[in-house]
Order: sequence, then C-alpha cells, then structure tokens
Amino acid sequence: MNKKFNVSTPSGFPEFCPKREKVRQQWIKVISETYASHGFQPIYTPLVERDENLVGKGGNPKEIYALRRLQATDEDKSHSGNALRFDHTVPLALYVARHLNDISFPFRRQAIGPVFRGERAQKGRYRQFDQCDIDVIGSENLSFFHDAEMVAIITKIFTKLNIGEFVIRINNRKILTGFFADLGISADKIKPVLDIVDDLEKLPPAKIMENFAEQGLTNDQTNKILEFTNVTGEPTEILNYLKGINGGEDFTTGVQELETVLTGIKALKVPAQNFIVDLKIARGLDYYTGTVYETKLVGHESLGSICSGGRYNDLAKIFTKKNLPGVGISIGLTRLLGQLFDAGIIQADTASPSHILVVPQDEKLVPNAIELSQQIRDILGLSVETYLDKKKFVKKLDYADKLGIPFVAIIGEREIENNSFVLKNMTTGEQNTHSIENIESIMGELIVF
Amino acid sequence: MNKKFNVSTPSGFPEFCPKREKVRQQWIKVISETYASHGFQPIYTPLVERDENLVGKGGNPKEIYALRRLQATDEDKSHSGNALRFDHTVPLALYVARHLNDISFPFRRQAIGPVFRGERAQKGRYRQFDQCDIDVIGSENLSFFHDAEMVAIITKIFTKLNIGEFVIRINNRKILTGFFADLGISADKIKPVLDIVDDLEKLPPAKIMENFAEQGLTNDQTNKILEFTNVTGEPTEILNYLKGINGGEDFTTGVQELETVLTGIKALKVPAQNFIVDLKIARGLDYYTGTVYETKLVGHESLGSICSGGRYNDLAKIFTKKNLPGVGISIGLTRLLGQLFDAGIIQADTASPSHILVVPQDEKLVPNAIELSQQIRDILGLSVETYLDKKKFVKKLDYADKLGIPFVAIIGEREIENNSFVLKNMTTGEQNTHSIENIESIMGELIVF
Repeated sequence: MNKKFNVSTPSGFPEFCPKREKVRQQWIKVISETYASHGFQPIYTPLVERDENLVGKGGNPKEIYALRRLQATDEDKSHSGNALRFDHTVPLALYVARHLNDISFPFRRQAIGPVFRGERAQKGRYRQFDQCDIDVIGSENLSFFHDAEMVAIITKIFTKLNIGEFVIRINNRKILTGFFADLGISADKIKPVLDIVDDLEKLPPAKIMENFAEQGLTNDQTNKILEFTNVTGEPTEILNYLKGINGGEDFTTGVQELETVLTGIKALKVPAQNFIVDLKIARGLDYYTGTVYETKLVGHESLGSICSGGRYNDLAKIFTKKNLPGVGISIGLTRLLGQLFDAGIIQADTASPSHILVVPQDEKLVPNAIELSQQIRDILGLSVETYLDKKKFVKKLDYADKLGIPFVAIIGEREIENNSFVLKNMTTGEQNTHSIENIESIMGELIVF
Repeated sequence: MNKKFNVSTPSGFPEFCPKREKVRQQWIKVISETYASHGFQPIYTPLVERDENLVGKGGNPKEIYALRRLQATDEDKSHSGNALRFDHTVPLALYVARHLNDISFPFRRQAIGPVFRGERAQKGRYRQFDQCDIDVIGSENLSFFHDAEMVAIITKIFTKLNIGEFVIRINNRKILTGFFADLGISADKIKPVLDIVDDLEKLPPAKIMENFAEQGLTNDQTNKILEFTNVTGEPTEILNYLKGINGGEDFTTGVQELETVLTGIKALKVPAQNFIVDLKIARGLDYYTGTVYETKLVGHESLGSICSGGRYNDLAKIFTKKNLPGVGISIGLTRLLGQLFDAGIIQADTASPSHILVVPQDEKLVPNAIELSQQIRDILGLSVETYLDKKKFVKKLDYADKLGIPFVAIIGEREIENNSFVLKNMTTGEQNTHSIENIESIMGELIVF
C-alpha cells in the first residue's frame, strides 16, 4: 500500500452482506413472480437515458446524476449528455414511445432494479435503491378494473412475504378535487389544498389549520374538508355516503371510478382486513389523476407507505401524440428492507446457499470429497460446497458453522474404504455414518426445502 | 408536444423487449442457481464507487463514467467524486477490504449485474452490460482445486443453457512465462511476448513473426515458442509432455498447478469433450498469475470467448496488507445474448408470462372473468391475465395471439349460467366447453411446465 485508500461505500450507496442479500433476492423472486402471475412482462431498459428526456419528464436537475467520463473525451464535449434514471416511469414512457406500433395494448410491464437520486444523504434515504414497479398502459383508454387488480397484487405480495398485518388505503383524486371545486375553491387553489390534505397525518392540527387559512379558505370550507376526509366505515358504506352527495362532474366521475375499483376488488376476493377507502389519501405526486393507493404496516405506521401508486392520464405526452392512460404501483425495496431489518420485523438467517459442506479429513482425500460433492449435486440437486484448502479439521467445521451450512459430510480413510461418509447435523450436533449407496434416501429425509 | 424529444436509447446502452428479456432472466436464473449449487453467495455492492478506488485498481479514466449532478450542488464541488463500476472485481476487492474480519475464507461470492464502460460504441459492444462473475478468495493461500471447480461450473451452465457444443481451453500463465524465461527471454520482454501469444489466433502468421522480431527474439526462440504453443493432445498427454521438460522453478510450479486442476476436473467428472489443455491461451489481462480459461462455442469460434477467467495472486493489494489470492470466471451476458440472437443460435419465443387469458364476451361479465382468473391463479398457481377493457371480441383473441399466450378461457352469459367456460387452445385452434368444477384436472392436463 503506497497510498491510503478510503474503501468505504460512497455516502447513500447501500451494500448488502450475503445474509441480507439472500433475503433481498428472495423478496425480488416473490415480487416478480406475483407480478408475472398477473401477466406483467419484464422489459430491460438501460440505467442511462438522455438527460433532456429525464428533465423533460419532471426530473429534478439537482438530483439527477449526469455521466461524464473521468477523463473527458471529444464525445463528452460535443454531446448533450446522458444521465442515470431516477425512476422506472420515464424509461417506460420512452420505451412505449419507441415501440408504439409493436406494443399490444393494454401493455402490462414490470420493472425491478436500481434507480438513482442525488438527494441529501440521511438515515434510511439512499441515492441508489431498488424500485419494483408494475404499470398497465392503455391506448386512449383503460378500464378501472386494472386499478382493482393492483390492490389484489399488493395483498398477495405482502401476504406471501409474511411481514404482518397491512392495510391498503384507496382513494380517488377526482373525488377530492371535485369536492374542493364543489365547495367553491378556485382552480388555482386545488393543488395546494390537495397538498395540505396529503399532510393531514404528518403535521399537527394547528399547522394544518394555518395552511388552509394561508390558501384563503373560509372556516366553513376548512371544516367541510376535515369532516369529509375523516369519514370512516366499510368500503361500501363510504361508497354509499359518496353516492349520496350531489357533486359536480369531476366528483361524480371519481365516485364511479371508485365503484368500479371496489367491484373488481370484490371479484378478486381481496380479504376485507387488507383494504379500506380513505378519503384523506392524496399522494404528493402531481401526475395522479384518479385512483391513488398507499399501504401501511399495522403497528408500524411510522415506516410510511410500503407500496404506493395510482392512476395517471397520460404516460408519455411529451414523447408522443398518442393518449396513454396508465395505472401503476411501486415498492421501494431497498428502503423497505433497510427499515424492516432495523426494526427487527424481519431477520436475515444464513449467508450460504449451501445445504452441505463436504469435508475431507486430510488433504490427500480432496479428490474423493470433490467426487462425493458432485454426486450429491447431480443426484439430489442440492447446493454443495467442498472444503478444498489445507486447514485444521476443527477450522473446517467452524467454517460451516459461521456460514450457517446445516450439514457437514465428512470423509476419512475409513469411510473411503467402506464407501461411506459421516453426516453431521450442525444444528443438533448429531452425527452418523451412512453408506454412499443410500445417499439419496438419507439426504431426502434430512433436507427439507 | 412543444419540443421534439429524441426518444432513442443512448448509443451503446442496450434495451431488451419482453421476448428477449424473458430469455435474459431465464439465463440469469440458470447461471445464478448453478453458482449457488457450488456454494457461491451473492453480495450486493453499489453500482457507484469512489473514483480514486476505481482508477487505483487499474480502471481507465477515459472509459470510467464519473457522476455529477446535472445541476451541480456544493457537495459536487467539494468532493472528489464517485463513478460507475466497470467490473465486479474492484467492488469485490473493496467489499473484502471493508469486511476482512467478518469474512470466513475461502470466500465464495457471486455477482450478477450491470457494469459500465465508456468505450467507443460499435456493433456488439455495449457501454452498459451484465457480467455474471464468481470468485473464490483465499486468505494467504488458496488450493488449485478451486480452479478445477470453475471448469465444472462453466460446463454445467452451458450444458443447461443448451446452446450447442463448447470447449473450455485451460492453460497456466506460469507455464508460459516460465517457458519464455527458460528460453533466455529477459524479464522485461515476458509480458510483451505473452501478448503476442495471446494474438496467435487473431493475427496472420506474418504479423506474428514481425511482432516476435520486434521484441528482439531470435528465430530459434520464436520457433520454440510456436512449437510449444501448438502442442495438441489429450489433457494427460500434454501434462506428461510438460512434465518431461526440464524447466525452471516458475515452469515447474505452473505444471504442478495444472496437474492439481486436472486431478480436480477428473474427480468432478467433467465430460472429456468439454475441456482441453491449450498452451496458446494467455488472456490479455495483466493480473492473472496462474490458471487461465477461455470457452469457445464449437462452430462459432468467431464469437470469441463466451466465458473467461483465471487465477490471480492478490485481489486487494492496494486496499489491504493481507495477501488475498483468488480465482474467478466471468460470463459477459449481454454481449453473449446479443451475439446468439443475431446468429440465430437461440430464439426468443413468447413475450408474456401468462399461461391463460380469460376473456369475457361482453363488458358486463368482467367481474365474472376476474373471479375465474383469480380461481385459476389460486388453485393452480398459473399466470393468468384477464381482458378487462372494452374491445371487439376478435381483438381480444388477437391480443392473446400477439403476446403468445397459449390458452384463452372465454365466458359468456351461457357459460355463467352453466358454471362453465370455453377453453381455446391458441396453437391448435381447438376449443371445448368445460365445467368450472373440473378446472383443476383440465388445466393440469393441458398445461405442462
């Protein structure tokens, strides 16, 4: 070492050790397979896009990472530049714009992978993080039954992941904005008022009242909004309450859309405890125009929403003339896993994918150990590691223990003579000699997947 | 559209449509599971590292992509900067340096994911591409039986991927460099001569002779090198030939290492047609110090090596004082898939993950179609899509056809009355009415995984 290198990860860029990475990959498998079970096709879009497209679709230039070669080339100097994607939605919009004529709509696509945002680094905030998205994109129109399917998919995923009780909260932006308009709130105040509603659970009541007043709302308007957004009840009760209000066109459309969503959710047999209609839900993002969702873990509401999404009018307006309505959801995987590990809600157990470590008693027997390992792999389809290096016997067992490998198969001179091996259960400490001929039945009994 | 956006992918950054992405994900599954079946643990390292670490480990600053926010912040100005990884080896070296005291050696890790190189864009060359790597890292020393296991793993992967005959060519750098030294070639010429040998199959003979002459080699030295590197035969024949040569220390060590590798390969029962010893193999990279591999597809040698790797003395010398020898292989997945699709060696068949599309005959029946879909998912674990939007019936069938969904389940008023559905086989065109009660046996018979 001539120079002292700082080997730590750059701030905000996470690293997962094998134990946690194993969990991350298991989660991705569950999420991806559930998405696929509803017909969502994966596409592969680059991590890098033209910077003007990212900014054009609303990316914040202060948070977008631009690329430039460390030692700039002529190309870098002449060319407007590329940058890292900050979500999966802009790449989807670009993909759809490129392939408009080949795509069969409705287009159901899944995207799981890293996105990058140069936010201020702080605990629980990452600059590189995995998002797991699905979206359905329609050509010119898209049934609100798709919005119902999202609720069933979220339910299936978190049920399979077994992280405890959760509730998906559903609303429709048009119901809120229509209600505001019907109260006489002017068009330019609708969005600021929506943002105040979005903060209802985050800010103290006094601050909320102050914010409403700042927008020039009367006490009567403020009280009506608070009363409306606090309505509780079974989904059908809330739907009936909404149908009883004599609202304007926007409001009425929103209620009809919500009705379709609830009809779909019923047909999908989503358990009643997993969803509610919550008229407080607004979601911050500008582009939602209909259904909005968020998902809270019961008893861990402070974690924030673990899966959010909604309906938008137009995916790719700036890139194509075609009207492309869509609905989508997103799981912020890296952040969620980080939070669940920190809160002790999930644990990472073992590092190694191996079921068995085959250990030769001395170095001469390594080829025999290799042969036995390959036999176990081929016959039983198990993951097997062979201890190949020269080490004290106890160190070899220690290795299996540290990596959480559940079984060790030991062979010495005597075992080779008798065509046998000693199988040690690393959890119980029990060990027995078995004939290699019976390997299939022995392993089959012991190792449960 | 106020402005005209260029929606094409940036040059050198690949995109895969659903059909090809399905193949890419299947390949990753095969590769990752085979790596895991030999105990290789996945770790998750960020795509972004400190630029000085990337350059310190030999990265080319003209090809490394540095990150800077599109609109620079104070942090960007004060801070030496981060950049995208160009391989999986430098991140591994940094990971090992960070976790030296927690890691149980030998450390077997797999890494599958994108790396970035700002090379000149040209056909078949990408700037973002997936590499699928494994490495075993030892503490102070590492048995050459690990090098044998790499050959078994490469064999298993390409056999499972079913892309035709392939041959892994194995050599040892010490045999070559030892042989050169024993011929009296001076130390400073060893590396240039190795590079010429690396070009033996790429350049015309006259150019090779010229290059040898340029390094000041005598005709006798040149002829001896050409004779040596052209030796052919069964692996054991070549080993015996090498053992018959009275070489210096380096050469002899190389031959011993090769012998261990061949002993291991035999124990692993790698089929004879899948590997040869080839004394021409040198591999370009500087850091290999022992075993080197490359893999060629028989009849498609012009594709180049489809999996390469080798043994190195020290993974992380610049980051830690500990001596960390390693051996690894790498599959350049994106490039390989691109080549195989272009050459027609593999085909991408269907886009959709769905086994069945459930189609309601008119819009009123959408909730019934949703219910049937969910039943098929829950009972049979199949991937099912529901046609939710209002479209002509023939358009709905057309959608299934375009996406390659093999079965369509149709329900109309009559089917709902009779608690039945019509199942249409999209390949044969055959269609029959079935009772929903028998759904399990019908689907089980028809759909083979």
